Amino acid sequence: MSGAANRLRAVSSATRLHDAIAELAGFNDDPGAGGITREVYTPTYGAALERVAAWMREAGLEIRLDAVGNMFGRWQGSDPGAPLVLSGSHVDTTLNAGRYDGVLGVLGAIEAVHLLRAAGTAPRRSIELVAWAGEEPRFGTGCVGSRAAAGHLARADLDRLCDRDGTSMAAALRTAGFDPDRLAEATIDPAGVHALVELHIEQGAVLEDAGESIGVVTAIAAPHDLRLTLRGAATHAGATPMRLRRDALAGAAEAITLVERLARESSSGTTVGTVGVVRVRPGAINVVPGAAELDVDVRDSDLPARREVVEALLAGAREIAARRGLELEITPIVEDTPVACEPLVVEAAEAAARELGLPFRRMTSGAYHDAMVMGSRVPIGMIFVPSAGGISHHPDEHTEPADLERGVRVLAGTLARLAA
Amino acid sequence: MSGAANRLRAVSSATRLHDAIAELAGFNDDPGAGGITREVYTPTYGAALERVAAWMREAGLEIRLDAVGNMFGRWQGSDPGAPLVLSGSHVDTTLNAGRYDGVLGVLGAIEAVHLLRAAGTAPRRSIELVAWAGEEPRFGTGCVGSRAAAGHLARADLDRLCDRDGTSMAAALRTAGFDPDRLAEATIDPAGVHALVELHIEQGAVLEDAGESIGVVTAIAAPHDLRLTLRGAATHAGATPMRLRRDALAGAAEAITLVERLARESSSGTTVGTVGVVRVRPGAINVVPGAAELDVDVRDSDLPARREVVEALLAGAREIAARRGLELEITPIVEDTPVACEPLVVEAAEAAARELGLPFRRMTSGAYHDAMVMGSRVPIGMIFVPSAGGISHHPDEHTEPADLERGVRVLAGTLARLAA
Repeated sequence: MSGAANRLRAVSSATRLHDAIAELAGFNDDPGAGGITREVYTPTYGAALERVAAWMREAGLEIRLDAVGNMFGRWQGSDPGAPLVLSGSHVDTTLNAGRYDGVLGVLGAIEAVHLLRAAGTAPRRSIELVAWAGEEPRFGTGCVGSRAAAGHLARADLDRLCDRDGTSMAAALRTAGFDPDRLAEATIDPAGVHALVELHIEQGAVLEDAGESIGVVTAIAAPHDLRLTLRGAATHAGATPMRLRRDALAGAAEAITLVERLARESSSGTTVGTVGVVRVRPGAINVVPGAAELDVDVRDSDLPARREVVEALLAGAREIAARRGLELEITPIVEDTPVACEPLVVEAAEAAARELGLPFRRMTSGAYHDAMVMGSRVPIGMIFVPSAGGISHHPDEHTEPADLERGVRVLAGTLARLAA
Repeated sequence: MSGAANRLRAVSSATRLHDAIAELAGFNDDPGAGGITREVYTPTYGAALERVAAWMREAGLEIRLDAVGNMFGRWQGSDPGAPLVLSGSHVDTTLNAGRYDGVLGVLGAIEAVHLLRAAGTAPRRSIELVAWAGEEPRFGTGCVGSRAAAGHLARADLDRLCDRDGTSMAAALRTAGFDPDRLAEATIDPAGVHALVELHIEQGAVLEDAGESIGVVTAIAAPHDLRLTLRGAATHAGATPMRLRRDALAGAAEAITLVERLARESSSGTTVGTVGVVRVRPGAINVVPGAAELDVDVRDSDLPARREVVEALLAGAREIAARRGLELEITPIVEDTPVACEPLVVEAAEAAARELGLPFRRMTSGAYHDAMVMGSRVPIGMIFVPSAGGISHHPDEHTEPADLERGVRVLAGTLARLAA
């Protein structure tokens, strides 16, 4: 292609992606809130998925839905028996979310297929795009679609996992036209997959902070989440002298500070620790808190470092409780295993960026993704583009169009290499 | 009276008080919760007040309701023109409360009148018992009945003060059959009041801790309440490295610890500081808190010491916010003035306890009461009985029957002295 034609095609591709992202943002159960609410298995989600299927068909892909609603679009390679290349993300959202999280990895992969076709690429391996069902934790646990594909969900889990209205995942599947008893059919045979690559917004500010457009992910951090409940005595805020208090929140405040300090001082330098939820009972200005619950999230791609932080936190929380005469309850929430990206995928992505003349940054993913779940079964990798201000899961989530386009071009080059 | 008759009468008096407290506990808008919910101006409150009026009449008292629903029961003295003696508390409750808070001060005063009549006391001054309306903060602010009597409420306040359902105090008054435009008629002329004494449960554990039955209150602490709002950036808990965070809750945790430390180290030794309410936004385990609100209550009977603590807290909160790159907003809630009890009343209560051979403890009241509000206009004092475990505003609120009886006997002796 001439340089001018190349530029023209790039512009038209960027416009098509931009328009598709904007159109998908219209599938929204709560437009009045300012952001996007499109939870998995809702009618709105189903309609959005149909729109995505139409775009996949326009890109020449053959559509298939599995037993839990993961949607695949297949580009048959010249060697149909060879293990294939998977690429995708998700099009469900959390509540009042942005338009890029997940969506970029699906619509961007469709755009990458357009670019490859336009460039005359004929892949040897088949390429399958995928929109995983339920990456966001409608049912408390995230990545339910990829967990099913990885064989990590049991039939009983579908009855156990419930959303905030008490609807089980099994019931939601039935309402959406799926049969929960066919769960096992969603399992993907790892032998049939050569590699998986997921394009995603960073959801942090590392790329923006460094002034870079492309992140090549080397490892995906995984969360260890737990709840700390401290119980003391709910006594009168005026009538209880300081020395006679058993203030659960004062103890919890020490634990919050400890989470931050331990993460900052972690041996890996990559641990993050967050208390995102505090519940105080009874929660009145004139009552000393009798109970305080903290939901704690500790993540790292370095499992031993994460374990050290969690162990130091639990020891510290026990010390705080003992010193203050509080009871401590520790409730596990989730404990996932970090995943290293496969050199095969990392190198393909780096080569693609290099060929395009795009500087890139090797980095870990602090957020978890469907790729993390699939990484326990198949070789995986991820490509990041910047998130403005590091903002995600928020209506203000934004990625510059030029960065979207760079990400798609790196993805296309990566797919071409992996499928060759 | 013989010793045997004295004992018999004491038993019968204690039983009557116990039965009345139990019966009043049945006037309850939420019996399923385990405690008592009887908010001022509700039909249930009105029915309870009618029952109390009947008990007052049985004690030979003449009933009168004022313009905001404060109920008075008058025992005419031999010198009707002399400034009178007031005694009472309140029979409204907070949500899911106990049965003694307030109620003891009203039903116990009725019982004290029975004891005085049985002993043949003929007071020179008139004694008026009172059930103040709305000591508990249905409309955000507590003590609305005594505030009206003290002349501290304006007509506009009745429209401004609203309950959690948005009902204004003016509307609630109308529904209960009162005319908010007659508010000014509720004002009590201080010249007509010789003294006010309120019997109350301690609501703290100081008496229990010291193994004592009677507290003679020398001062009533008053709250300075304010809201601290810290605002940072709600970013992804996994994808935001520790060094790039502006975690509002981590800053708030430091402020909570600071409130506790400043109160403990206060120059008066009597300051208490409490954070009873925390609101975290967005409040998700995977999002760094973007905003945290703390409702802070600082109390002392020593106003300069309280002021020092509040000023040090605000300076500390500003330092925390500046160091962490957070915005700080400070919202005033309430700032009441502590009240010293009148030596006249304190000495009468001490003399009454001494005559009964009951040891007592001089102490300050950490909780505020209608007596604190009236203390700005008339000479006041309070008598405390122990609260088991210091528990109050809770279904488990309890005071031993023997302590109730001791409190009533000290109140009777105090009234007799003040009215002589």
